[in-house]
Amino acid sequence: MYISKSFIPILKNIPSEAKIKSHQLMLRVGMIKQSSAGIYSWLPLGFKIMKKIEKIVREEQNKIGAQEILMPTIQSSDIWKESGRYEDYGEEMLRIKDRQNREMLYGPTNEELVTDIFRSSIKSYKSLPQLLYHIQWKFRDEIRPRFGIMRCREFYMKDAYSFDINDEEALFSYNKFFLSYLKTFKRLNLTAIPMAADTGPIGGNLSHEFVILAETGESKIYADKRIFDLNSDGTELEKNSLDNLRKKYEQFYSVTDEKFDKQEFEKKVSEKNQIKTKGIEVGHIFYFGDKYSKSMEASVDLPGGKKDYVKMGSYGIGVSRLVGAIIEAKYDEKNEIMKWPISVAPYDISIIPMINKNDSSALNKANNINLELEKNNIETIIEDTDENFSSKIKKMNLIGAPYQIIIGKQTDGDLLEFKEVGKDSQKLKLKEIVNIIKKEKVKN
Amino acid sequence: MYISKSFIPILKNIPSEAKIKSHQLMLRVGMIKQSSAGIYSWLPLGFKIMKKIEKIVREEQNKIGAQEILMPTIQSSDIWKESGRYEDYGEEMLRIKDRQNREMLYGPTNEELVTDIFRSSIKSYKSLPQLLYHIQWKFRDEIRPRFGIMRCREFYMKDAYSFDINDEEALFSYNKFFLSYLKTFKRLNLTAIPMAADTGPIGGNLSHEFVILAETGESKIYADKRIFDLNSDGTELEKNSLDNLRKKYEQFYSVTDEKFDKQEFEKKVSEKNQIKTKGIEVGHIFYFGDKYSKSMEASVDLPGGKKDYVKMGSYGIGVSRLVGAIIEAKYDEKNEIMKWPISVAPYDISIIPMINKNDSSALNKANNINLELEKNNIETIIEDTDENFSSKIKKMNLIGAPYQIIIGKQTDGDLLEFKEVGKDSQKLKLKEIVNIIKKEKVKN
Repeated sequence: MYISKSFIPILKNIPSEAKIKSHQLMLRVGMIKQSSAGIYSWLPLGFKIMKKIEKIVREEQNKIGAQEILMPTIQSSDIWKESGRYEDYGEEMLRIKDRQNREMLYGPTNEELVTDIFRSSIKSYKSLPQLLYHIQWKFRDEIRPRFGIMRCREFYMKDAYSFDINDEEALFSYNKFFLSYLKTFKRLNLTAIPMAADTGPIGGNLSHEFVILAETGESKIYADKRIFDLNSDGTELEKNSLDNLRKKYEQFYSVTDEKFDKQEFEKKVSEKNQIKTKGIEVGHIFYFGDKYSKSMEASVDLPGGKKDYVKMGSYGIGVSRLVGAIIEAKYDEKNEIMKWPISVAPYDISIIPMINKNDSSALNKANNINLELEKNNIETIIEDTDENFSSKIKKMNLIGAPYQIIIGKQTDGDLLEFKEVGKDSQKLKLKEIVNIIKKEKVKN
Repeated sequence: MYISKSFIPILKNIPSEAKIKSHQLMLRVGMIKQSSAGIYSWLPLGFKIMKKIEKIVREEQNKIGAQEILMPTIQSSDIWKESGRYEDYGEEMLRIKDRQNREMLYGPTNEELVTDIFRSSIKSYKSLPQLLYHIQWKFRDEIRPRFGIMRCREFYMKDAYSFDINDEEALFSYNKFFLSYLKTFKRLNLTAIPMAADTGPIGGNLSHEFVILAETGESKIYADKRIFDLNSDGTELEKNSLDNLRKKYEQFYSVTDEKFDKQEFEKKVSEKNQIKTKGIEVGHIFYFGDKYSKSMEASVDLPGGKKDYVKMGSYGIGVSRLVGAIIEAKYDEKNEIMKWPISVAPYDISIIPMINKNDSSALNKANNINLELEKNNIETIIEDTDENFSSKIKKMNLIGAPYQIIIGKQTDGDLLEFKEVGKDSQKLKLKEIVNIIKKEKVKN
């Protein structure tokens, strides 16, 4: 793709309304455009990244046996009255009257709707467990939307729901999502830590937030730093193995300010292991038993002939929010360098030829390199404008393909100037470059 | 996937509220569930099919150089006031007041919003043409939603927009979409005919509807039957070739009732070539010049230094609607047999073992076959219940995988009972079955 033909409207200056670096970068390189307060359009660059995140989220949901559905954005108020949340939700819920004067709303979450689907479809314990998820736009009418897509009104979210016969099975489902979330964030090259959390308006008795570290984060974090060295390697989709995974994480103190208790923190964590910092919530999982199944009468036949309400949990990942969260975690604001993890990068590599008037040799070279890279399924962007070289490099540093090939005056023969962003450049053959990138892509 | 573990709630009877066969089948095999009037949730079976259609639509948009973006569902009324359509649109537009009492709306289409994005991003003719598309949920508050997802309120649509410097270039863009649509519908195994159409509320001077034949269609169709023998083979993405393609189609009379003129029809089409039938609209393309760019002041700098309003077109495909349209075109209601085109089938093949109590041999055999098929990227569903054999086959005929392997009492040795739905069964080795299906998949 030539940058001159792409729809990537770059701004010269950082828009003054943007207060955090993800918002600044996203506006600057034309990833998004605000259409009204807290509502954004995703332009091609931002869209590509969001779609790649969505794909990883989807794959990791499928791996634990969750089935994908799609619930509508507009819901009837009836089911929210059944659950009792219609009045509770307050003004953040966008309430709508249709032409027949029916009370509708733009779904901020889907516990009610999925419970309604479940109760009309599943009648017997034999069909359990059921793990259902969808990835859909949601709306929360924030009174003061800000920070770009980090705290906006219309946002893209994966929410999953589990239905089980009893607490034990329900915790098995909960732990599957616990694992799935660790794997998802790892593939996004994020270190996300599960933290004991309050259940808030979803309700229930067990909950973890997944938080990544970022100075601009909205949550304060208190943790035993050894928790950052853990990972889910070797965990299997089996009760004991998953139990052990959660125990491994829960042995270390880690909470957000909501649950923070100074005395407990100082007692449980030795001074040298204490971390106090800030973070961004990127996922949240809840177990709430029969909170919704009871009020909405979602029950199944048990083996003995009796009926019981199913035990439910819900599990959210902010897909659009992750685009901003990755920028907050990875963007080197001082040097104006973004390096997207290869798993979600909009392009794998940028080709930057130095172009002089009446001399198309560097561009021709770029085109030839491009052909070879595309043959190997490596996504490229070519900076084909005749702007000056340093502004071209600056632009590509912001767009954030993790690799660059620079074609300057000295480029001659087989050796190309190749650079992994943030590292020194080196002279390599095209074939070697292809191998490096292919290897990185397979890993992620 | 075992059917016993899947979330495919099958109904015993056809729901009485469903009047057309797509609505009947979709409810019966649990592809969708109504959540409120004209609003549906997509359950796993329906969702899988819709996603495959979406993928084909996307690929064919990308092939003509269109770039994907994503505009939000909720729009501000301001831009609709600029274009003058806010009052015109009437009650089909779902109007919303947010908590700050701002006038918002759920987008029924996106000409205004995309023009706003364009005018703030592109300043020079050098960046033209631009072809932008998105695939997003839309809402039209139909007074009498009916026929399931064929005439619903919340629906999933691909809409594209072209921006060009003058009429000639704009028609080049128009023709690219003309080709893209023919290719898209062909990959869906549909014969869609472009028909001269009225431009309606979108406005403009050139428009084609793409219509497939179906007895239940809402449009009457009058055509020269020779148009059904045409195709786009050999057309290249180049002005003359595309021009010729449109001329080839336009030489034959074909209109919907809106544009029908009896005298003209009888004069232009000899009696033996006259077709009068019904059809379903699956796509619609419009060229409307500067209708929106003028009222919304979207102009670019021209080579000479002057400015001019860009020339625009818009191009829609009803993605969710196509699920129903394919059923209307393909479902054999009398024999209760659905055969999905392999390009969008929810599963490539169903494996139907005859299962008796205390005898797991047929199921084991099914599992082994499944392993081999999955290794070859063939998607399967196994009918693993202990229901009686004929009801299992009936169920699988409705779910509509285009191939079946039946494991009955006689199944022994290497030869399997293999059936392409609607044809006679034959005895084949698994390897031969794999080859047949792989070959079909590559073609589509």
